[in-house]
Amino acid sequence: MILIFVGTAGSGKTTLTGEFGKYLEENGYSVGYVNLDTGAEKLPYKPDLDVREDLTVWELLKKGYGPNGAIVESYELLMPQLMDYTERIIRLNGERDYVLLDTPGQVEVFLFHEFGVKLVESLPEPLSVYLFGPEILRGIHDFCFVHVFATLIGLRLGTVTVPALSKVDSGDSVEDYRKFLDNPDYLTARLKFEASTQGLLAYNLCSALSEVLAPVRTLYLSAKKRVGFEDLETLAHEHRCTCGDLT
Amino acid sequence: MILIFVGTAGSGKTTLTGEFGKYLEENGYSVGYVNLDTGAEKLPYKPDLDVREDLTVWELLKKGYGPNGAIVESYELLMPQLMDYTERIIRLNGERDYVLLDTPGQVEVFLFHEFGVKLVESLPEPLSVYLFGPEILRGIHDFCFVHVFATLIGLRLGTVTVPALSKVDSGDSVEDYRKFLDNPDYLTARLKFEASTQGLLAYNLCSALSEVLAPVRTLYLSAKKRVGFEDLETLAHEHRCTCGDLT
Repeated sequence: MILIFVGTAGSGKTTLTGEFGKYLEENGYSVGYVNLDTGAEKLPYKPDLDVREDLTVWELLKKGYGPNGAIVESYELLMPQLMDYTERIIRLNGERDYVLLDTPGQVEVFLFHEFGVKLVESLPEPLSVYLFGPEILRGIHDFCFVHVFATLIGLRLGTVTVPALSKVDSGDSVEDYRKFLDNPDYLTARLKFEASTQGLLAYNLCSALSEVLAPVRTLYLSAKKRVGFEDLETLAHEHRCTCGDLT
Repeated sequence: MILIFVGTAGSGKTTLTGEFGKYLEENGYSVGYVNLDTGAEKLPYKPDLDVREDLTVWELLKKGYGPNGAIVESYELLMPQLMDYTERIIRLNGERDYVLLDTPGQVEVFLFHEFGVKLVESLPEPLSVYLFGPEILRGIHDFCFVHVFATLIGLRLGTVTVPALSKVDSGDSVEDYRKFLDNPDYLTARLKFEASTQGLLAYNLCSALSEVLAPVRTLYLSAKKRVGFEDLETLAHEHRCTCGDLT
């Protein structure tokens, strides 16, 4: 069972990979760890596959690339190894109960570059978890944004994709978020009364989509406090059994 | 009139800012240039406002940050200057016919970080141009992806957002792309016959959205060959006059 953690830099992918892996191991599962981030620093887990063995962003910075260029170029240069990585991940998946994929720091390298898209399309029924922190939820329309963005990740990668609010230990009450994220009808009802252009756009987007897309549960996770780990494990288990229907 | 060029690293934002600015100046307009990329290397234009005067990614790399952390942290550290930047851009907009905003190399820093979102929400009616290269159009569902992503950028930034295929000089015929990008009915009709999960998801997404969203023209641009510059100028002019209706 392959789990892919996707999200922007700082959303908590690496910490979650380490902590959720430990949790699974403590519960008797065997776990494989894959690091796909050429710009990663210290990892809180021992990777079975690590792209940094082939190339790091630092090497390209030393060669004179700028920071943005070095990140993108590192994945260009890793393209010849893609087939090898895919085969190693599939083999690892055959040997372990779970394989956790920690994706590039910058989400766009994974979603927009051939590296991420091609890698994922060759993997057997992985489940993507889209991590976002509470800091991006500034207005009501942002709750619509994260739902649609999770759908777009699913569209681009061809995987079932679950939105997951990360770092739920940091301050605000989760209940305030649950109201909007777990209840599409409540969200659209509230959006209807937003006078802004963003509110209207979000209303149109989210009410139209709720009619054609299957509802997907949102996860509430804290890697530090191990909040939501049972839910993630249950979801992964259901995904393995049903292959896709996570309503 | 403020134009914001948004897109992933390598989509051509900086080159377009330079070339389109030159084009406007040659046509008698006064142009202001703003660089918001802390990781930018050489710029093909002389910025009137440059965030690198306050901070660069390189400085943070030297202080021991990793590449991903340095990019995100640079915008955290620039937050106290945000009000000052906003005021300077608004002043520049009062003095010049056009102000061109060249955004951070990594699109996620602009869309997911408070820096980009807060900056844009204080600007008077800017027009966002979402640049994507032909390389991300791998399957038919990707044509739906770019449309929805442009809508999401609009939702997040609260701006009218036009999708623009960049680098149309590089190889493939533009006509092949136009069929799908300019004709939502043709796109959904074709998606209907895609057997894949991605095809079905894209069909549901794009057919639902075409009913609730106003259609927006797609631009076809080449900074190198100055293709589509008249179209972009016309669109900007219409945006200034109508404030939003770009059907």
